Amino acid sequence: MDKVKVFAPATVANVGSGFDVLGFAMEAPGDIIEMNKSDKEGINITEMISEKPLSTVTEENTAGMALLAMYRAKKIPFGVELKITKGVNPGSGTGSSAASAAGAVYALNQLLNDEDKFSDKELVDFAMDGEIVASGARHADNVGPCVMGGFTLVRQNEPLDIVAIPAPDELYVTVLHPEIEIKTSESRAILKKQIAMSDAVKQWGNVAGLVAGLFTNDYELIGRSMEDYIVVPTRSLLIPMFDIMKQNAMNNGALGFSISGSGPSVFALCKGKENAESVKKALIETIEKTELAYNIHISKVSSEGCKVID
Amino acid sequence: MDKVKVFAPATVANVGSGFDVLGFAMEAPGDIIEMNKSDKEGINITEMISEKPLSTVTEENTAGMALLAMYRAKKIPFGVELKITKGVNPGSGTGSSAASAAGAVYALNQLLNDEDKFSDKELVDFAMDGEIVASGARHADNVGPCVMGGFTLVRQNEPLDIVAIPAPDELYVTVLHPEIEIKTSESRAILKKQIAMSDAVKQWGNVAGLVAGLFTNDYELIGRSMEDYIVVPTRSLLIPMFDIMKQNAMNNGALGFSISGSGPSVFALCKGKENAESVKKALIETIEKTELAYNIHISKVSSEGCKVID
Repeated sequence: MDKVKVFAPATVANVGSGFDVLGFAMEAPGDIIEMNKSDKEGINITEMISEKPLSTVTEENTAGMALLAMYRAKKIPFGVELKITKGVNPGSGTGSSAASAAGAVYALNQLLNDEDKFSDKELVDFAMDGEIVASGARHADNVGPCVMGGFTLVRQNEPLDIVAIPAPDELYVTVLHPEIEIKTSESRAILKKQIAMSDAVKQWGNVAGLVAGLFTNDYELIGRSMEDYIVVPTRSLLIPMFDIMKQNAMNNGALGFSISGSGPSVFALCKGKENAESVKKALIETIEKTELAYNIHISKVSSEGCKVID
Repeated sequence: MDKVKVFAPATVANVGSGFDVLGFAMEAPGDIIEMNKSDKEGINITEMISEKPLSTVTEENTAGMALLAMYRAKKIPFGVELKITKGVNPGSGTGSSAASAAGAVYALNQLLNDEDKFSDKELVDFAMDGEIVASGARHADNVGPCVMGGFTLVRQNEPLDIVAIPAPDELYVTVLHPEIEIKTSESRAILKKQIAMSDAVKQWGNVAGLVAGLFTNDYELIGRSMEDYIVVPTRSLLIPMFDIMKQNAMNNGALGFSISGSGPSVFALCKGKENAESVKKALIETIEKTELAYNIHISKVSSEGCKVID
């Protein structure tokens, strides 16, 4: 194979109580990575289609940094040219940097001979290098589900210990992105360094409940276990109308409502597409009361991560 | 049915990372509750067979308090007499108070007509009242698995939200009880009120990994996810030889090693009975270097909780 076109989905990290450890893949939106082998050595990002300007310099680009990690790990006898079409908005909090990084390493893996191919877990590890560009640190809570699909648990970043967790068939997500800027660094700075033991115990009871609910298709358990006692109470202050959006989503039957990654996107988990549509309607009614631009997506929680298209 | 004999198993609460939320049932040892209907109103503890003295006054006895909660919940047209034979040593940290409380409400439930019987979850809720006698507070991390068997997750004590979690078939436990006294109140007093966010994140990653490992029969994941960053580092200081016992258990193939409940019992989870025997041998060699009296048990992690015997 000399060229490949890959779809890399948006992802939701944290998922309420699972701060820094849980994430899941959406069916859409996603980035598209078109890659071909090149006689020229190294990595050449030839085109970047994005609403917001992003560097095409390899070392300043999440996809570029992830590919560099892959080239360091193995002698690959060709260079690559790639075109990135951003479908996941940078700064949305739905794994934009992760999608490009994961999509790029997934694409390059397709171009390798079968005996040289890396495992999904190795691809996640390479893609983590892309996150350094975006947030200054290697973390797998978005690149994990982006590569592997479904839910993933990142038990440990270094060395990487990642666990696939199934998603129930009828689990849908409604994601609303209010177009305000929250830098990941600011969103991390607002977090407390010390937390109350009593809150922490409630939190890990919920994380355990969330994982148990995913394994047993217990939608109600998933919903009530999403509640985050540690991070969301602070971070939600940065998101206009958070409490009202949450209340309206829950009144319209959402299983749970929380912040996607470090925000500003918010999301509701829902049972079934119809309920996700009702919640979407309620969220639009709420956000329309502000002057904020926004976009909103409905997606199944996808068991697929990156995939070859066309 | 006018009389019944019930076995109520020992239980291990916390299970490392799952502090205050996880617990599991053993096959043995356990308490035996013999109960019969009586024309005399109320609850009459007629006999208590126990190495350590325990009150038979209803309001001062864990079984008595649990039964009182059950009588308050429903008009029961008969009194009961019960004999308690303690198999779970008080103060061992393996759910001694829980076994008597859970066994008693389970026994009384057997004596009710089918249409009057309570659910397992309701029985757990009644048995929690028994824990007030032992620790001053209602908590379900021992009475939960004692009634329901297997692993249980107590997502929330009030109102009770308890989730059954399956145990892999070959999961065994070796429990060593060094005969020193650690009061639950002291063991709680040593805990920090504030903890580091970074430790808490590692902890809930582990709790999630432990639950995922139980659902997928991934013994290695269960083992490495048992590590507790919050409670065991402090509490283990109260237990002589803890670090050396842990090291020797792990060197002999234990999946993980931690404190049972608030101690002083320690336990190792093992894959298979043979491994549990090797770990038992290693622990005996270690504890024999001290002058401490001890007892040691091997048991399968049991899918059964309380049950009728004879």
